[in-house]
Amino acid sequence: MSLSKLDCAYIAGFLDADGSIYVQLKPNKTYKYKFQVAVNVVFYQSAKEKKFMRNLKKLIKKGYIRERKDGIIEYIIGDEKSIIEILKRIKFYLRLKRKQANLMLKILEIKKDIESAKDFLDLAKKIDLFRDLNYSKKRKYDYFSVKKVLQREELLTP
Amino acid sequence: MSLSKLDCAYIAGFLDADGSIYVQLKPNKTYKYKFQVAVNVVFYQSAKEKKFMRNLKKLIKKGYIRERKDGIIEYIIGDEKSIIEILKRIKFYLRLKRKQANLMLKILEIKKDIESAKDFLDLAKKIDLFRDLNYSKKRKYDYFSVKKVLQREELLTP
Repeated sequence: MSLSKLDCAYIAGFLDADGSIYVQLKPNKTYKYKFQVAVNVVFYQSAKEKKFMRNLKKLIKKGYIRERKDGIIEYIIGDEKSIIEILKRIKFYLRLKRKQANLMLKILEIKKDIESAKDFLDLAKKIDLFRDLNYSKKRKYDYFSVKKVLQREELLTP
Repeated sequence: MSLSKLDCAYIAGFLDADGSIYVQLKPNKTYKYKFQVAVNVVFYQSAKEKKFMRNLKKLIKKGYIRERKDGIIEYIIGDEKSIIEILKRIKFYLRLKRKQANLMLKILEIKKDIESAKDFLDLAKKIDLFRDLNYSKKRKYDYFSVKKVLQREELLTP
């Protein structure tokens, strides 16, 4: 990724205005702790601007483009390595979403070192912090959902 | 206006993602050619981000903030002098709306030199070009509206 400072400032402005940095807990029985931690950095735009989005993707050299049915196009960076790289480059230029960027980086750092269900539950608590930062009214799965499942599966020592 | 290059790149990214550059013809009998040419550079954001918008305004040192009833806040730069200044500074960093910026600057240049109803009608034609650039489905007043009024008022020599 060879982004200039000016590229980074532009991308930060774009992400602040019409982008999103978020983490979701998704139930998935194939995962050790029964939840997948899905991470996303997304840029939104009208599907009319597909060419622009492709150019943005060429510039950042990561992620993929998805066209929604409602006329919105999403440029999604969803793998951890890419997210760490791009956020580390642009976070100093973010003015609205710098807290989200820092929290995302923190979560990905913690995630690497998870060794127990208890660690995972702590991570879920950290993920809940996104709720306030992103004004999410309702998260389908949060700390309590994880706790319940881990207890039920007897992964968590009481 | 003492914006750094990085500020300009950031502002351009923000405007590209969630902003608008547009010109409207508004009927107004007190104007010589019966229409006001209303020019606007607008940044949009959720009203939750009022503090951010205030900071953006402090940075740009122009315009004003308006809170809409639908939970959107608009930071509007609506006077010609300020628009010329800000667009000249950021246009090289715009990737999506550079055409709009150039057309706006062109229109404001032409507008200064208007000496006849015919000149004004030519300006209205230029303003119509925004329709395609901004994907505006319908403009209430366009070249033909202006022509009709100028003819009716006998301002236009046939």
